[in-house]
Order: sequence, then structure tokens, then C-alpha cells
Amino acid sequence: MLGALNVKIGSGIFIFGYQGGKALGNLSKRTAQRLVKCYYLAREARALGVEFITSSKVALLLGVDETQIRKDMASVNLEGVPRKGYPVEEIINRLEDVFGLRKDRNAVLVGTGNLGRALLNYPGFSRYGVRIVGAFDKDPQKYGREVGGVWVYPVGELKEKAKDLEACLGIIAVPPREAQGVADVLVEAGVEGIWNFSPALIRVPARIALRNECLESGLVMLLHEMEVMKKSLAGD
Amino acid sequence: MLGALNVKIGSGIFIFGYQGGKALGNLSKRTAQRLVKCYYLAREARALGVEFITSSKVALLLGVDETQIRKDMASVNLEGVPRKGYPVEEIINRLEDVFGLRKDRNAVLVGTGNLGRALLNYPGFSRYGVRIVGAFDKDPQKYGREVGGVWVYPVGELKEKAKDLEACLGIIAVPPREAQGVADVLVEAGVEGIWNFSPALIRVPARIALRNECLESGLVMLLHEMEVMKKSLAGD
Repeated sequence: MLGALNVKIGSGIFIFGYQGGKALGNLSKRTAQRLVKCYYLAREARALGVEFITSSKVALLLGVDETQIRKDMASVNLEGVPRKGYPVEEIINRLEDVFGLRKDRNAVLVGTGNLGRALLNYPGFSRYGVRIVGAFDKDPQKYGREVGGVWVYPVGELKEKAKDLEACLGIIAVPPREAQGVADVLVEAGVEGIWNFSPALIRVPARIALRNECLESGLVMLLHEMEVMKKSLAGD
Repeated sequence: MLGALNVKIGSGIFIFGYQGGKALGNLSKRTAQRLVKCYYLAREARALGVEFITSSKVALLLGVDETQIRKDMASVNLEGVPRKGYPVEEIINRLEDVFGLRKDRNAVLVGTGNLGRALLNYPGFSRYGVRIVGAFDKDPQKYGREVGGVWVYPVGELKEKAKDLEACLGIIAVPPREAQGVADVLVEAGVEGIWNFSPALIRVPARIALRNECLESGLVMLLHEMEVMKKSLAGD
């Protein structure tokens, strides 16, 4: 086993299993996921000029119980105003604080294949202060130009350039067999977090935040569910 | 509560909680996720001309215990050949069967914003027999043309066109407040599965396979983890 004591696989257990810190670290994963959605709703509400949102409205929109929403809000010290609901602006501020969204962070992306290019062209991340400042590829035909407004460098320069660019987040969109090597270089370059879009499971030191994301495995899981459902409905 | 008996939120609990069917439906979620990764590895191996792969090699690449891999393989009736390992071709065939990947399936995508366009331009899905045959948008500036080789129709025609196109899978990439309405129309149009990329939680009848995917909430969770780690390391 690959040094199981120093590494972690995936982020699920570790992230919110963090103990002994302030309230920030003690959110359960499910609570955090619901609060992320509350944050979205609050932003949408603000965009529409709405100042207060009730827990019953939030509960309805998220499809969960109202009591749950009140508990979630209370867990980050958000309190409703009687007959008005939660102040939208306060939800946004508190959750931006809880989730650490107020900082500007530089990110580098490795692998400018289809998924990498889609991510480079996806503007949603800047909303959270994340700016992709450099991309890397091993294919000479791909580096030395811009994709989605981001310069593509040779992957051999990853460590040095990621440092120069002050990247604290690395996004991996390379084939699975290259993912671990890229992760290792990103760690050496000093990133604090890795967002892995390859289907490979990545091992990183425990101090590094890690999230494994995999679109294709999401699709496979969904197709599998469709298959199971069909057999179930057919009484097979 | 929105008719909790007829609906389900998310897919996590339901998919692999399916009981009483054949072995196919009885994989735990974690086993299924590891097997998806085994499937990738086997495909990579085949592309390299490798005929056998050992459980220790798979375990090393996935960063899990070898015993676990043997158990996972056994759960889908895959057996290794002594001193050779698992036949790569057999892994691929068995898992394509288990995950229902041998069928061709038509999909429609709703919402041709940045994420929608990225998905339309992402070729990886065809590997699983999934072909996006039509896209839909509410913005007249967006429909009436092609994106990524796919024709964009007005969203008002979704129900009718999704039927015409024999779509069994609906991909949702609209803003959160529109997601439930789109899901309802997709269900009416007869899809068997919904892949939801909006941050909204979608409610669908229990017979419909559902997967909620949310890139931005993935990023928020990762940033949150980075924040927690930093505070932890700083002894804050």
C-alpha cells in the first residue's frame, strides 16, 4: 500500500471530518452541500432584487425539509427575521466567509484536451475568485498559444511556471495515467488544492485539499442506474 | 414536503439501494465507482495492446487495497488467470454489460450557455453510446443554428422534439430556477434518465434515473476544504 498513513484518497472523508477547529470546519458534508445551494439561491434572489428569503421558500426550492434548512442556517450562525425570513445579503456574506470565497486565487490547468478546453472557456469559476492564469500541455501543437484567453505552456515547465504564476489551485484534465505525475508536480510547485477531472484516483499529502471529479464516471453511473431501473420495471 | 413518497432527491441512495433484482443492481455505490475506474484502466490497457492486468497493478493504479479489487471483480463474476491476471478484454466486456454501455442512446441537452456548449463539444460521451441529438434554448438568438454539430431548437418545442428524436436521456444545463420545469418536460417526453448540471436539486418520479452534477458546487467544496486546511495548519 502506498504509504496509507501520509496520503488520502479522495476528499469525502477528510474534508469535513476535520476536528478541533472552529465551527467552519465542523460542517457535515451534507450540510455543506445544502449550504452551497443556499448560497446559489441567495445570489439568484439578490440578482432579482429580493431582500429576504424564508426557510420554507428555500426548503421548497431545494426539495428538503424546512426544519433542515433552519438547522443548516443556524449551523453557520444565520438567523431569520420574524415574518420576513433570512436577509439575502447576510446569507451571501456569511457563506462567502464560511466557504472562503472572498479571496482571489490563481489556478493552473493541465491538459488542454476537450474537457480542459471546456473548463478554460467556462466563466463560472471567476464568480468564486478563481482565475485560471496558465494552462499546460505535453503536445507541442497545443502549447505556445492561447485557449480561452489563457496561455498554454509546455507541461515540462509546470513546476516553475505554477510557482511564478502564484497558483494555489491545480486543475488536472489529463488522461488517467498521467494524472498522478501531474499531481506530484503541482504539489511540488506549492498548490494548496487539486481539482482532479481525470478518472484516476490521485494521492496527495494530507495538507493538500483534493477533489476528484469525473464526468464520464458520472455518466456511466447514470447509465447503470437507467439499466437497473429498466430491468426492475420489466420485472426482469 | 413535496410528496416525498413519489419522488427522490439525488441518486445516491436510490441507485444502488435497489434490492431483489439480479446481481447487476446489487453493487454498492463504492464498488460501482471502483469498477468504473477498472473499466477505464482496462480500456487504456487494451489501447496499449496489454492482454492481462493483475489485481495488484489495478490496486496500485487506483490507490486501493488489492483484496478490495479482487472482491470487486468477483462481485461481477470476473476471475483472474493464475500468474497472468484478469483478461483485459473480459473486464471490458463484463463491465460494459454491467453498466449497460453497449446500447446506443439518444440524449437531448437543454441550455446552451457556457457549460451546455462545453458538454456539446465534449466527445467523451459517444464512447458510452450516448449521442446528443438535439439541444434546446429559450433565447431566440441561440436557437436555429448548430453548436458542436448539434441543432439548437426553441425550448418550447422540447417535449415534442425530444419524443421525435427518441431521446432516452436528458441533460440539463439551465439556470437553477429553470431546472425543475425542464426536468418535468423531459419526464413528460419520456426520458429514462436525467443528468442535471444545474445546482438546483431536481425532483423526478422514482422510475427515472437521476444524477445531480454541479461543477461550481464542486469548486466551492474544494475552496472550503482549502480554507479549512489553511486555518488548521496555521493553528487558527
